Amino acid sequence: MTIGTPLLDALIQALGDSAVLRSDADMAGYTEDWRGRYKGAALCVALPGSTRQVADIVRLCNDYATPVLPQGGNTSLCGGAVPDEAGPPPVIVNLSRLRQIRRVDPANNSMEVEAGCVLATVQQAAAEQGRLYPISLGAEGSCQIGGTIATNAGGTGVLRYGNTRDNILGLEVVLPDGSIWNGLTALRKNNTGFDLKHLFIGAEGTLGIVTAAVLKLHPLPNRHAIAWLAPTDPQAALDILGLFQQQCGSRLSAFEMIDSNQLDIVMTHVPGRKNPLPGAHPWHVLVELSDTGSGAELQEVLQQILEQAFELGLLRDAVVASNDSQRAALWEVRHSVSEGNKKAGVGLTTDSAVPVSSVPRFIAAATEAVRRLVPDLPILIVAHLGDGNVHFIPFFTFDAWNALPERDAMAAAIRRAVNDVADALGGTFSAEHGVGRTSLAEMAHYKSPVELAMMRTLKASFDPAALFNPGRLLP
Amino acid sequence: MTIGTPLLDALIQALGDSAVLRSDADMAGYTEDWRGRYKGAALCVALPGSTRQVADIVRLCNDYATPVLPQGGNTSLCGGAVPDEAGPPPVIVNLSRLRQIRRVDPANNSMEVEAGCVLATVQQAAAEQGRLYPISLGAEGSCQIGGTIATNAGGTGVLRYGNTRDNILGLEVVLPDGSIWNGLTALRKNNTGFDLKHLFIGAEGTLGIVTAAVLKLHPLPNRHAIAWLAPTDPQAALDILGLFQQQCGSRLSAFEMIDSNQLDIVMTHVPGRKNPLPGAHPWHVLVELSDTGSGAELQEVLQQILEQAFELGLLRDAVVASNDSQRAALWEVRHSVSEGNKKAGVGLTTDSAVPVSSVPRFIAAATEAVRRLVPDLPILIVAHLGDGNVHFIPFFTFDAWNALPERDAMAAAIRRAVNDVADALGGTFSAEHGVGRTSLAEMAHYKSPVELAMMRTLKASFDPAALFNPGRLLP
Repeated sequence: MTIGTPLLDALIQALGDSAVLRSDADMAGYTEDWRGRYKGAALCVALPGSTRQVADIVRLCNDYATPVLPQGGNTSLCGGAVPDEAGPPPVIVNLSRLRQIRRVDPANNSMEVEAGCVLATVQQAAAEQGRLYPISLGAEGSCQIGGTIATNAGGTGVLRYGNTRDNILGLEVVLPDGSIWNGLTALRKNNTGFDLKHLFIGAEGTLGIVTAAVLKLHPLPNRHAIAWLAPTDPQAALDILGLFQQQCGSRLSAFEMIDSNQLDIVMTHVPGRKNPLPGAHPWHVLVELSDTGSGAELQEVLQQILEQAFELGLLRDAVVASNDSQRAALWEVRHSVSEGNKKAGVGLTTDSAVPVSSVPRFIAAATEAVRRLVPDLPILIVAHLGDGNVHFIPFFTFDAWNALPERDAMAAAIRRAVNDVADALGGTFSAEHGVGRTSLAEMAHYKSPVELAMMRTLKASFDPAALFNPGRLLP
Repeated sequence: MTIGTPLLDALIQALGDSAVLRSDADMAGYTEDWRGRYKGAALCVALPGSTRQVADIVRLCNDYATPVLPQGGNTSLCGGAVPDEAGPPPVIVNLSRLRQIRRVDPANNSMEVEAGCVLATVQQAAAEQGRLYPISLGAEGSCQIGGTIATNAGGTGVLRYGNTRDNILGLEVVLPDGSIWNGLTALRKNNTGFDLKHLFIGAEGTLGIVTAAVLKLHPLPNRHAIAWLAPTDPQAALDILGLFQQQCGSRLSAFEMIDSNQLDIVMTHVPGRKNPLPGAHPWHVLVELSDTGSGAELQEVLQQILEQAFELGLLRDAVVASNDSQRAALWEVRHSVSEGNKKAGVGLTTDSAVPVSSVPRFIAAATEAVRRLVPDLPILIVAHLGDGNVHFIPFFTFDAWNALPERDAMAAAIRRAVNDVADALGGTFSAEHGVGRTSLAEMAHYKSPVELAMMRTLKASFDPAALFNPGRLLP
C-alpha cells in the first residue's frame, strides 16, 4: 500500500477503502493499455458507485490540483485512457461500477444507461425489447458506453446508423468544476439553445466525465442478406456501392472492403477461416442488407444488383450466403483481420477517411507514397468503404521490422506520408479511433490555427485548471 | 439617406455603395419579420458578396462595438432574425448574395453550398443528381440554408432523416473576432478533436455567422405509398406508429397527426381541400412510406399494416392513395394547416416535444391544464408524432380573442401551462422553432442553472463583447 496523501485520505473517506485502489498490483489493469503499448503511474484508481461520487472525486481533485483521468473499458487504440509519465500522477476515475441500465422505453426507441455499461450488454438489453443499439465494433465485449461516447466510436454500423454521436439523445456529465449537468433528455427534437451534449461526445474526457446517456434505438432487423464480392478494383467497388445505395437505400447495412494481402493473412494465420471465393482476386467486399418486417425480397434484390454489377464488368466473382451459418462465416473472415495481423507481423495501421468518392485515388496515391519510402512494402487495406474510412496498413513481417535501423522514425514517416495524401484529398488522419496521445503531432500539423484556437478556447473555458485528461487530444 | 457614420462609411468602402442599404424604405424588408409581429431599427443592412466580405463586416463592427445581426430568409417564427428596440441599432448582415452551389458530389452523397442558397433551390440541385436533401418545411421556398443551420430546422422529414444538424457534414463560419473557420469537410467520420460545427448549428447566430456548409445527401426515393388514417385516439396512433416502425424500418418517412378541430378549420377556410375520409373522426394521421429502387411492395406493406391495425381495434377508417394526384391531395391537407388557422382566428401555437411514448399523456394533460384557464377553449393538434413533436394550439376565434381583457397575459399563462406539462414529462418548450426572442422567458424558467451557466460560458468565450445577435437565445 502507498503512503496516504491528503487527497488519498479524502477519497477513501468519500468512497470507502475498497473503492480506491492504490497498490501497483491492484492498479495494474488500469495503468497499462490492453495492447501493452502504454503504461504510466497513477495516484490511485477511484471506482465511484454513483454520479454523486464522481462529482465528489472531481471536487477533491480540484482541491488538490490533481489531474483526473476518466477511464472506461480501457480499449483505446490511441493511448487515450491510461496515464503517461508526464506531469503529476492522476487519479484514474474508472466508471465500471456505474453499470445500471436505468430505463428502456421501446415506444420512444430510447434507453437510459450508465457510463460503465459494457456495449454488448446494452446491445443485448435493447434486443430483448426488439430494438437495436447499432454501434458495433471489435471491442464491444469489453468497451463501455462512456468510452464509446468520449471517443465517438464508429465501427461497422456507421454506414446505416451513423457514429455514436448520431445515436445519443442525452447525456449526464460531471463537469470539471464538480457540478453535474443533467442533460438526460430523450427527445428527438429540442431546439433550446446550444446543443451541449456534442461538446462531450468525442472530447475524450478533456471537458468532463460522461456518467450516463440516453441512447437512440432502432427497430431490430430480423432479415439479412449477405454476399462476398470480388470487384475488379476500388473504383468498381465504389460503383457497386452506388448501385446498392440507389436501389436499397438504408437497407444497405455494411459495405466492407479488404484487399487480397489482408485476406491472405487471415487465411494463413487465423485457424478455421474459409476463403469465401475460389481463386485469387485482388479486392474483396462484404455487403450486407438488413431489414425489419416480413417478406423475402432482400435476397432477390441482392441477386439482382449483383447481376447488374456483373453485366457492367464491375465484378469478377461473388457468393451469396444462403443461411445463417454461411452469413456468420463471412463476417468471421472480416472480424479476423486484427487477430491475423497481430500474428503475421507489424502493421502501421492508419485510420484515414476521405470523401467516399476519393477512396480509389487515396489508395493509389498512398500506396505510391509509402513505396517511395519502402519499395515493395506490402499494403493491407481494410476499408469501411461506405464511410470513406480506410485503415491503410503498411505491413512488415516481424523479421523485416526487426531489421529496420530506425523503427520509430520510419513508422512516423510512413504515417505522415499516408496522412498527407488523405489531407490533400480533404480527408482526416483519424476517422474513428480518436486522437489520444498517438496523434497529437498530427493534430498540431494538420489542424488550422483557427480551429486549434477554437478548441483551446473551449478547453480553457470548461477546464481552466487543465486537470481533465491532460496531454490528450489537444497538442 | 441617413447621415453617414464612421462605420457606415467604412462598410460602404468595403462592400460598395449598393451593398449597404441605409434608407428606411430599402431596409423595410429586413427590419420587420414576415408575419409583421416584430420590427426594429438597424444601422444598415449589409449585403456581402463573399465570405471575405462577411469577415470584413464583422471586423468593422468589432472596431465600432456595433452589434451584428445575421439574417437569412427572415422566416423565423420567434423574432430571431430582426432587430428589436433594445440597445444600439445593429448592422444586419443579410446572406442572400452568398447563393452559390459550390459543388455536388453524388458519389460522396454530399454538396457544398453557400449560406444564402434558398432551401428549395438546394433540394432541386440535389434532385437533379438523383439525390435527396431531406430537410423540408413550410418556408422552403424562401428560407435559406444558413438560417436552417442557425436554427437546426426540423420539418416533416425528421422522422426518417433527422434534423438539419444530422444532415450537416461541414461548415464555414465567420467567428465573432472576424476570423474565418474553414470546417468544410465532406467526411462521414472524423474524430479529430471537438466537433466544432455543432456549436454553430442551432446557435441562432449568437456565436458566429455560417457562410457555407457541406450537406449530407441521400438516395432520392422514387416510390411512395401514402394513406390517411383515422385512429381511435392518440395512443392508437402511437401503436400504429410502432407497427410501421417495426415492419417498415426507415421506409417510414412521415407520420403526421392532426385532430378533428384542425381538419375542420382546413376544410372550412382553405378552398379546394377535400376531406380525405367520409364521416367524422376525432383523430387523423397521414402516413407515408418511401423507398428507392424497383418493386411495388410498398403499397402491399402499407395495406397489410392497416389491416393489422383494424384487427387490433386501432383504426376507425383509412384510405390509401392510389396515384400521385391523390398522394398530393393528402399532403395538401396537411400543408394547409397554417393557412387555415391564419384565416380562422388566433392560435397560441406551442412547439412542444416529449418522448414519443408520452404524447398521448401530454395531449390529455395539456388540454386539461388549458381548460382550467379557459373552459371549453378549442384545441388544435398538429403533431409530428414520430418525433414526439406536438404543436399544441389553444385556439380563439377573432371575436373571442378581441373580447379578452388581458390578451398578452392570457397568452403567456396558456403557454406556460402547456410548457409545464411538457416539462413534467421530460419535454421541451421548443422542439424545432428555436428560442429567438419569444422564448427567452421560457429559457430562464426551464433550463437548469448548470446548463445556463455552460451556455453563458460558451457565449462569453466566443463572443466576449456580446455583439452577435444580442438579446436572442440566451436570457
